[in-house]
Amino acid sequence: MASYLITGTSRGLGLTLATILAARPEDQVRFIVAAARTKTPALEALINKYPSRIAFVELEVTSQESIDAAVVKVKQVLGPSSNGGIDILINNAGIMPFNPSGIFEATDLMHVLNVNVNGVQLVSAAFLPLLRLGSQKLIFNISSVLGSIELFPRFAVFPVSTYKVSKAALNALTVQWSLDLSKSDFTVVAASPGWLRTDLGTDQADLSVEEGANGILEILKGITKADTGKFFDIHVPGWDKTTSFNHYEGGVLPW
Amino acid sequence: MASYLITGTSRGLGLTLATILAARPEDQVRFIVAAARTKTPALEALINKYPSRIAFVELEVTSQESIDAAVVKVKQVLGPSSNGGIDILINNAGIMPFNPSGIFEATDLMHVLNVNVNGVQLVSAAFLPLLRLGSQKLIFNISSVLGSIELFPRFAVFPVSTYKVSKAALNALTVQWSLDLSKSDFTVVAASPGWLRTDLGTDQADLSVEEGANGILEILKGITKADTGKFFDIHVPGWDKTTSFNHYEGGVLPW
Repeated sequence: MASYLITGTSRGLGLTLATILAARPEDQVRFIVAAARTKTPALEALINKYPSRIAFVELEVTSQESIDAAVVKVKQVLGPSSNGGIDILINNAGIMPFNPSGIFEATDLMHVLNVNVNGVQLVSAAFLPLLRLGSQKLIFNISSVLGSIELFPRFAVFPVSTYKVSKAALNALTVQWSLDLSKSDFTVVAASPGWLRTDLGTDQADLSVEEGANGILEILKGITKADTGKFFDIHVPGWDKTTSFNHYEGGVLPW
Repeated sequence: MASYLITGTSRGLGLTLATILAARPEDQVRFIVAAARTKTPALEALINKYPSRIAFVELEVTSQESIDAAVVKVKQVLGPSSNGGIDILINNAGIMPFNPSGIFEATDLMHVLNVNVNGVQLVSAAFLPLLRLGSQKLIFNISSVLGSIELFPRFAVFPVSTYKVSKAALNALTVQWSLDLSKSDFTVVAASPGWLRTDLGTDQADLSVEEGANGILEILKGITKADTGKFFDIHVPGWDKTTSFNHYEGGVLPW
């Protein structure tokens, strides 16, 4: 009976998460707020298929004005007294520009930090009152194994230096939120969905977007309050440690 | 015979690093560029004491225009053909505002990331050509044990959430720089100077600024190329693990 707010649902992982959740029975998923900058045809088709279960809310995660308007819209959608609030916030919106010449020539660090880190900060803070009304009080941040500082050497050939730094910062933000909300019965986690064949991940990636989304929802299903502050990897059997960068072993990733 | 560029030298750790280095013999320290937003009376007094060994360069680390002007000024100071360039860049400038109500009420995340992370990015990138002319090719980033994500729980009572996130991001940036410059014979490290009795650290802190500066210079002295990408703690004997937050054991800190 959980209600979800998912950011970045116009395509890729966010759209697929919304698609899978929308097809689940009412006793598992009560309502989905699909937030995105634009309502793409694919997102519109999904909403038309489940008009009573999904609502689109326009959201630009780097704009306080847009976020404030989205909070008002979500309250309207939820109805009187915000009707149980939001149970689960999935901060999925993010960008991954390429820095082919290395970090020392990158000029997009602040932009990437703004979307991937500050966006999560602003959205989580603005929706905190609605999350406090929810019964699960779960903030689930889509991070990346590329944000594991310990694993930076393994992924050195992936030319997305500022993305990596931003996801390390997001992991730190996640732990800080988990600590500062530890007395409020909240659970705040980060998780890596794997390298997915999306616009962001390119068609060179390891996994289908469905594999990534199902892996994320498996993690989400198993989370307890004791997991707050952790950084999870998805589990996809069959990945050979000797030939692939990613292992998808599940469990917790190193910082 | 090393030449140093140190940011944030108007007071605190940066000023003390410059003060200690200026008193060392010529065969150890050739020249110091003391960069800061403003030439404080204390910095001016230091420069007047060693006018041939220290030059002040105005630098606002978040302003590309200021950084570009600083590069021009440093080249003028170094003389013809930039005279051996800069051997060691110490990225010390930083801020630590308080977030007493927790990360979810913090409104300064982007500002703190801009100074503490992007400032290091912009300054390091702009001075990279002069560092390439140097013989040591060392970028030394002043981080903090508060930026160790693994140690966030230990330091949860310190109400500087955005600072902690920024220093975790700086550690990630440091490792990324070390990797992307690994073929260029550079050494890029981060280090925690301890909790110092400066304007930033307050008079409640553990250590004098001299203890912190000497600890940092001890680390710097021992660094080899094999240390690139590491995150060091200072070593101050006598800190009891059972009664203090900080242990100052030296060695490498966890991410």
